[in-house]
Amino acid sequence: MPEASTLAFEDSPAIDGVLLNIGLLADNDDLAAVNRARIEAAGARCVNIMSSPGSGKTTLLEATLAAFAGTPRIGIIEGDMTTELDADRLRSHGAHVAAITTGRSCHLEADQIAAGLDRLADAAGSLNTFDLMVIENVGNLICPAAYDLGEHTRVVLVAVTEGDDKPLKYPIMFHGADCVVITKIDIAPYLKIDLDRLTANIRQVNPMATVFALSSESGAGMDAWLDWLRAQRA
Amino acid sequence: MPEASTLAFEDSPAIDGVLLNIGLLADNDDLAAVNRARIEAAGARCVNIMSSPGSGKTTLLEATLAAFAGTPRIGIIEGDMTTELDADRLRSHGAHVAAITTGRSCHLEADQIAAGLDRLADAAGSLNTFDLMVIENVGNLICPAAYDLGEHTRVVLVAVTEGDDKPLKYPIMFHGADCVVITKIDIAPYLKIDLDRLTANIRQVNPMATVFALSSESGAGMDAWLDWLRAQRA
Repeated sequence: MPEASTLAFEDSPAIDGVLLNIGLLADNDDLAAVNRARIEAAGARCVNIMSSPGSGKTTLLEATLAAFAGTPRIGIIEGDMTTELDADRLRSHGAHVAAITTGRSCHLEADQIAAGLDRLADAAGSLNTFDLMVIENVGNLICPAAYDLGEHTRVVLVAVTEGDDKPLKYPIMFHGADCVVITKIDIAPYLKIDLDRLTANIRQVNPMATVFALSSESGAGMDAWLDWLRAQRA
Repeated sequence: MPEASTLAFEDSPAIDGVLLNIGLLADNDDLAAVNRARIEAAGARCVNIMSSPGSGKTTLLEATLAAFAGTPRIGIIEGDMTTELDADRLRSHGAHVAAITTGRSCHLEADQIAAGLDRLADAAGSLNTFDLMVIENVGNLICPAAYDLGEHTRVVLVAVTEGDDKPLKYPIMFHGADCVVITKIDIAPYLKIDLDRLTANIRQVNPMATVFALSSESGAGMDAWLDWLRAQRA
């Protein structure tokens, strides 16, 4: 089994300021560029997955790990405020997972990813072990959008249970996505959800994003997602 | 129809700092105390409703307004990053609604509530018009927990579609709730959700909270919620 790996950043308050943050965000972007170069030097690429709490990020990653069965080789950096519940779910599929607990903070930052890469390199012998680094961000449809972590592509999930208006109400997150995945489509028949309107609302704020609709439970629509994710490798 | 009312706070970045924030948060708490005193002087009380995006805050408020049919008299302050989609839904029930768009910011702050109270007082003639002020916060299960807005009670929603682990993963929000409402129970039969475990997880982080389980769609469990909300009046 991969080595358990946890980093705690308990002292970072989830409250906002203004003047100080301009400098902090610039520092973050510098570190993100270093992360990106380091991942590329290892022959890999990095995907940053973001969504509301409960949209199905971990469940989609579990289904993805099961389908890939070790190829491509995925290293995961798993962000949560507290607990290793999600990290343990992913470890049960044999994945190397660096768990990062953010404490009071509402998003991951580039310095936490740098530390996560260190842990993954230690656990696997080298970052060269991996074809793809996947970051599961803290469940939050707003704040993570402001932080470059060193990823190459951004994936945003939205569950059919959240309603068709979310792209319009949280436009910054959806606008910045390279790929939007509509999840839990197996439940759609039991909801007042208009999937065409949801897709149109995604297109309104982001005409360029690749859009998938799938169910990690039933497997419907998974193949297109898996093909797209495979293609994100170097 | 009540007058449309919108406040834009577009310049508040959703990024965090440390030193500057200690002062800002103290200022916020001072303003929150003023809001609370002002609401009490008008003979009302205030409820702050928080949850992830898509947990059903607006839908629960719509069902609540329909059931109350004007008594008690509710004034609503509606927070969203962008759009007045939710405010318009609530106005269609005849409610006075002050819409606040937060721009890039991930939560409401006390100064925005003060401005919202001004607008509600203007629209209705006086704050004395209202028995209960309801704040619908920005959809975010993390950041709003840090900001006292001048409310008397905090309500946190969690939809059955979000999974039973959310109280453990977002403990600060659930720990600070006076009332937790489990929503969308009509969909529970179609999900792998253990309602007993969800309730137990709420109790683990907050043994004192009042807990309801309901469906705004089917009406199941609504009566207990409506009774509780009526009892929050002065």
